[in-house]
Amino acid sequence: MDDTRALSANSLAEHLNASGAASVEHPDVPALMADLGRRARQAARRVALASDEQKNTALRAMAARIRARASAILAANAEDLAEAKAKGQTAAFIDRLTLNGERLEAIAAAVESVAVLPDPVGRVLAKFERPNGLQIERVATPLGVIGVIFESRPNVTADAGALCLKAGNAAILRTGSESFRSALAIAEAMSEGLEKAGLPADAIRLVPTRDRAAVGAMLSGLNGNIDVIVPRGGKSLVARVQEEARVPVFAHLEGICHVFVHEKADLAMAKRIVLNAKMRRTGVCGSAETLLVDRACAPTHLKPLAAILLDAGCAIRGDETVQAADPRVTAATEQDWRTEYLDAIISVRVVNGLDEAIAHVETYGSHHTDSIVTDDPAAAERFLAEVDSAIVLHNASTQFADGGEFGFGAEIGIATGRMHARGPVGVEQLTSFKYRIHGSGQTRP
Amino acid sequence: MDDTRALSANSLAEHLNASGAASVEHPDVPALMADLGRRARQAARRVALASDEQKNTALRAMAARIRARASAILAANAEDLAEAKAKGQTAAFIDRLTLNGERLEAIAAAVESVAVLPDPVGRVLAKFERPNGLQIERVATPLGVIGVIFESRPNVTADAGALCLKAGNAAILRTGSESFRSALAIAEAMSEGLEKAGLPADAIRLVPTRDRAAVGAMLSGLNGNIDVIVPRGGKSLVARVQEEARVPVFAHLEGICHVFVHEKADLAMAKRIVLNAKMRRTGVCGSAETLLVDRACAPTHLKPLAAILLDAGCAIRGDETVQAADPRVTAATEQDWRTEYLDAIISVRVVNGLDEAIAHVETYGSHHTDSIVTDDPAAAERFLAEVDSAIVLHNASTQFADGGEFGFGAEIGIATGRMHARGPVGVEQLTSFKYRIHGSGQTRP
Repeated sequence: MDDTRALSANSLAEHLNASGAASVEHPDVPALMADLGRRARQAARRVALASDEQKNTALRAMAARIRARASAILAANAEDLAEAKAKGQTAAFIDRLTLNGERLEAIAAAVESVAVLPDPVGRVLAKFERPNGLQIERVATPLGVIGVIFESRPNVTADAGALCLKAGNAAILRTGSESFRSALAIAEAMSEGLEKAGLPADAIRLVPTRDRAAVGAMLSGLNGNIDVIVPRGGKSLVARVQEEARVPVFAHLEGICHVFVHEKADLAMAKRIVLNAKMRRTGVCGSAETLLVDRACAPTHLKPLAAILLDAGCAIRGDETVQAADPRVTAATEQDWRTEYLDAIISVRVVNGLDEAIAHVETYGSHHTDSIVTDDPAAAERFLAEVDSAIVLHNASTQFADGGEFGFGAEIGIATGRMHARGPVGVEQLTSFKYRIHGSGQTRP
Repeated sequence: MDDTRALSANSLAEHLNASGAASVEHPDVPALMADLGRRARQAARRVALASDEQKNTALRAMAARIRARASAILAANAEDLAEAKAKGQTAAFIDRLTLNGERLEAIAAAVESVAVLPDPVGRVLAKFERPNGLQIERVATPLGVIGVIFESRPNVTADAGALCLKAGNAAILRTGSESFRSALAIAEAMSEGLEKAGLPADAIRLVPTRDRAAVGAMLSGLNGNIDVIVPRGGKSLVARVQEEARVPVFAHLEGICHVFVHEKADLAMAKRIVLNAKMRRTGVCGSAETLLVDRACAPTHLKPLAAILLDAGCAIRGDETVQAADPRVTAATEQDWRTEYLDAIISVRVVNGLDEAIAHVETYGSHHTDSIVTDDPAAAERFLAEVDSAIVLHNASTQFADGGEFGFGAEIGIATGRMHARGPVGVEQLTSFKYRIHGSGQTRP
């Protein structure tokens, strides 16, 4: 996803060690959360059966309510900002937290854009007739209740709520403490939109307390009333969720993405792709963190590739061959091959051909997104087959790792697990399925 | 699945409280299991890349090795049987455990039949071109390492191992103590078959100890080296796995399946379906446990439906209206609506129309398999849409809840969860996917 993670160190603080106003305790968090879970489950049953038209009406009403409540939302945001500044948050953090008229309009427009997506519920995923005449269909159904735990970005309240609803799910949203008031004001607009369309307000709810015990309750699954949890934020947040959640998690811990420049790579293409993969935006999970260069083309390709990165302001940590290619390169340590810099830094290694490149990616990578640059189709096919990552590319930048770039319209995150969802998680991946069978009186012999 | 669960009470004893020879302890189970996990992961990487032909060669070689080792397998089984008899196991248990020439041939033939299935790996699940020319494909990949925990049925060793391999996965198999020697002999034949095809023997391994600590190790996920666990057995085994597993589980806890006879049901069809759904085999998870009869047709339908079941030897526990219909009916308690009898017993209730029928199924059911009998297409569509079960049928018996009946060739079980796999879990559901993208030098603006 396109969220910067440069401030990931804040996540633990936000969710685990909240202090000051952020640690306001609720008198009975377990009861509050249990009630939230029950209400979400009831709401999920209703939105699961809603028509596409009804869901779209709700989404457009939500956008209208966000616009209508703009002054209240901005006032809530001003309070969040004042508190964040008083706590000495960084300028980048304050910027992520800040709403204004333009940003609020973008949030409303994003909710409307979800209405335009095809309804993922009810799609016939497979259909077959058995010799006994039974007509069997595999049909997409909603997942149920989705818990989303995110850092202090007010837009996620609207984005995540809208995507979950479009797929017929209820959403329980937990924001970082610093954006609590802003998120609550947006969530209330979302619930109002639901009610305008005759759908239950409980289908999108923000956890109405900053008490940190609420996160633990969500990770426990709220007595079976959360079906999946999606963490959106830095590595420490995702790590905690993956470690502690007793329900499935759609997430990626980190994006240690590679570009492998194969011996048959066109140099001009390789330069474009490497520069874009690393430097277009350095803080996104699809940015390249390691460049692998085939020893067979290193004499011609290594120096220009290093130069284009260095000249663009990117630091290089390289092995001995790379260090010899340019004096600006510093020495890479073993740890560099395992590091997601999320910054203008890249590790560069020369490898002995395709096998060593694949072995490096499988040893040090994070199964997120990896690319090969080559004019040799056979080499490309082997790389795409043998690299076990959610997204594998041939002659394209790793920065395409994004639901929007896939044509999914929007995404709730990128998953690197192998269960259910993998890669960008759009509305289709927020559905399950059932088997619907039509007969004419068949009994089993 | 078609396994009887009549002996489910044995599962805890087998896996938790094994005694006598079954509790033989291994000197270092954690190290043994960790090693098994590492080996399975390495093997998984190799079988993931195996061609369909190579996997099929292995499957046929496994069948040949099972036949070639028949006398050794039957000798091992004789030892298991002697021990089980000495421990006073029931006749039904002994029967499930018993192998003979005919049953062993059926096991070998079942392994061969998996070779005939289409390769689920490499299927292009979706394919689209983006405006920038990127060619994006969603391609089926193996899941990784599958842990299967089952009771003392020697055939599961072969069935589960073959299905996991066909989908490009490695399998770690844990059998019930009583069939340990039989299962080990079969597993060795499977590993020999793998090696004959040039594939790693570690791709199918039986846990080589009866020490019960091995189960706990599997449920912990073996340091990330098990991707999913499939329990096959009685309710207590499945409940423990669902409760304790730290990795995803494909399972169903129970099959409380319903047949709803709607007011527009043809009586002759309803009688056939109800009798088959309950009585074809009472011990399978797809057998009906509750019959719901629409009050609107009760005057004509209730008495004949009750009679056909009672005359076939099925006990009925019914509400007051049902009791009034036939003197042989006894009173149902609230607990009856929640009971999976797995026996010639059924609970019968008269409901006020479709809404009450759906509400009953959603309140008391287990989201496994439910059927409506009606000539009214609108009522059928509502039932199929609103009943949130893995399998929903119109005018057909619930006993079709079986991978073979779906045309999947074989199944490793039936899942009622909403994540990844739902309904019969065949080879397709034992795969994940990745995104494979071909470009021509695209960079992201």
